[in-house]
Amino acid sequence: MIANKMQSLVANSSAIRAMFEEGKKMAAVVGAENVFDFSLGNPSAEPPAAVKEAILNILSEEPVNLVHGYMNNSGYEDVRKKIAESIQSEFGAAITEDNLIMTVGAAGGLNVIFKTILNPGDEVLTFAPYFAEYRNYCENFNASLTVVPADLNSFQPNLQACEQYITAKTKAVMINTPNNPTGVVYQEAVLRELAQLLLAKEKEFGTDIYLISDEPYRKLAYDGVKIPYVLEMYHNTFVGYSYSKALSLAGERIGYIVANSQMVDFKATMDALNVANRILGFVNAPSLFQRVIGRCLTAEVDVNIYKKNRDLLYQHLIECGFSCIKPEGAFYLFPKAPIADDKAFCNAAKKYNLLLVPGSAFGCPGYFRIAYCTDFDRIQRSLASFSKLAEEFNLSN
Amino acid sequence: MIANKMQSLVANSSAIRAMFEEGKKMAAVVGAENVFDFSLGNPSAEPPAAVKEAILNILSEEPVNLVHGYMNNSGYEDVRKKIAESIQSEFGAAITEDNLIMTVGAAGGLNVIFKTILNPGDEVLTFAPYFAEYRNYCENFNASLTVVPADLNSFQPNLQACEQYITAKTKAVMINTPNNPTGVVYQEAVLRELAQLLLAKEKEFGTDIYLISDEPYRKLAYDGVKIPYVLEMYHNTFVGYSYSKALSLAGERIGYIVANSQMVDFKATMDALNVANRILGFVNAPSLFQRVIGRCLTAEVDVNIYKKNRDLLYQHLIECGFSCIKPEGAFYLFPKAPIADDKAFCNAAKKYNLLLVPGSAFGCPGYFRIAYCTDFDRIQRSLASFSKLAEEFNLSN
Repeated sequence: MIANKMQSLVANSSAIRAMFEEGKKMAAVVGAENVFDFSLGNPSAEPPAAVKEAILNILSEEPVNLVHGYMNNSGYEDVRKKIAESIQSEFGAAITEDNLIMTVGAAGGLNVIFKTILNPGDEVLTFAPYFAEYRNYCENFNASLTVVPADLNSFQPNLQACEQYITAKTKAVMINTPNNPTGVVYQEAVLRELAQLLLAKEKEFGTDIYLISDEPYRKLAYDGVKIPYVLEMYHNTFVGYSYSKALSLAGERIGYIVANSQMVDFKATMDALNVANRILGFVNAPSLFQRVIGRCLTAEVDVNIYKKNRDLLYQHLIECGFSCIKPEGAFYLFPKAPIADDKAFCNAAKKYNLLLVPGSAFGCPGYFRIAYCTDFDRIQRSLASFSKLAEEFNLSN
Repeated sequence: MIANKMQSLVANSSAIRAMFEEGKKMAAVVGAENVFDFSLGNPSAEPPAAVKEAILNILSEEPVNLVHGYMNNSGYEDVRKKIAESIQSEFGAAITEDNLIMTVGAAGGLNVIFKTILNPGDEVLTFAPYFAEYRNYCENFNASLTVVPADLNSFQPNLQACEQYITAKTKAVMINTPNNPTGVVYQEAVLRELAQLLLAKEKEFGTDIYLISDEPYRKLAYDGVKIPYVLEMYHNTFVGYSYSKALSLAGERIGYIVANSQMVDFKATMDALNVANRILGFVNAPSLFQRVIGRCLTAEVDVNIYKKNRDLLYQHLIECGFSCIKPEGAFYLFPKAPIADDKAFCNAAKKYNLLLVPGSAFGCPGYFRIAYCTDFDRIQRSLASFSKLAEEFNLSN
């Protein structure tokens, strides 16, 4: 018998699998090239050439047991030093390798942070819409996720509501910018106000409240938009980063956590992150890809690939009469569904071979997510389907 | 403030770090080549040449986004199929890719199994001496580890004692063969008797009891010894495997779990393992190394490297008057300490630049562990130190 907690999780995952199976059936009928699967956030841009080059150079230049063997659970010191220096030079943040630990992607990193700080019964706050896995990550440690309702006008963090939601039990506030599912970049002024709010609430309740910024989409920003770096806006801040999207290495599970030196109990916290990385079973971030990162600090995927997709699809949705905030980052669009029931709407979309994800999966019903990390020509071919979908729901342009 | 549970874990880890620092100080005084650090199980044999070859071939032959992108959380189907076929042909086990999920090493795999089966308050049994991380893995899920006392004559699982320890709360029994820290290979007759005992206890208590076999050292066996395959000896069995030692890829975090098809709720369990792999933050086993494994199924490290180390060191210890079971696998020796206080003994050993781990760290006080995964010539140079240590404690040959 599987554990009680797992029963509902398995049921839920079967629903996702059912959708996947439906896509396969669809492909059998209309051909794979005519299924417009916008449901998954799997990077479509290729990793930069520097990645392959780095692997080849490492294999020919570095000692094989160093490359594939155990190292400190926090990761190779030389790699952490290089990353710390690049963060210093890009954001002026006062950090060294001692502020950093390498993690099994951002998902691994968030679990390591939660293991380190959460006691059973603690609350973590996040802002709708949000990445649904956050709830599972909190519940791994018998803590709960509380969702602050969305600011539907901007999808910026709803600070007014947030103030009401912070209690003495609030151990952390999580943000995700550029955001999944909206693609919105949180503004510096809003983040600074959030920092002030957290400081005030720490004082009010006599507690420590952590700010955790999950930033796997940091490198995917368009139109020259600058993504504010929150690390030094607030003392008790962790930033979780991943190379999954930045270098299109989602399967390799490579990322890091960086912590603000001014954090309460900084040294003990870094030690605890190191131990948590070990005892959760990660042990260390994959070794070869740590070394690859050390050689690819200035490499980036070609974000124009995603920008082209966004521009085409956004423009078309607006022309069809959909209402949508133009996203400045990530590879998602989050338009308003023309009916309140977002699940019914996404079901209707299947008629046109469109696979979309209901906003309720992100704590924001009445909307839907389009993951546009797919081929440009598939997006072109999908436009007619979006037009028909708009017609069905009497949207006018 | 870090979480309550983490406080003692950090203190404990600081003790390990202190030992590491001591080794560094020692090296500064006597020279790194004269520090005999037998404390860590980091493979010293090089990965077989097939690993590098596989990486190069994958990078030149396979689509780059397939190699580095997300796949099913259980791992690439083609890789799982190949591994399943190799298990079938080696052990005659009736399994397919549906019995397998790829994991972030064996440590990741064990946590995925525990997440899948453990409810808070459950008990997991293991046999002393045992790998200390098992306790942390259980406690990750609010379950507890109960340790069955060692059979000091053989270091085989102590089944007589085990029978007394199994209760209605026992959810799993864990074994580790070849064993860390003893190097002992559990015998087929003993394992079959254990299977019978578990069947009887399932009946007696009306419960499901899982057998979990942790086998990272399976490929490290000497003198032609065959390591029994427990998967089909008992219905509710999981085997956790890792390529950390088999291919000297400890840092790459690559392994798998295989489950017996006759297991209760087999399909739901496999689904739950898939979900657990995702929500614990592993997401999937590192993608490139999954593909490497698919091409390296017959590759193995040169176990003669370890055998030579074992033979030299074992022979010398016996000649010095130490008492030790000759290990048939892994890369550890677990001799009896000449005094009851194994910690005091390991402290005394430092005088001779020997870094050893007290048996109490493995639930077996009065013994000590030597990890002989190091250079042969370092072992040669260490022999004089072991002689002096034996003299100090009046051991005679």
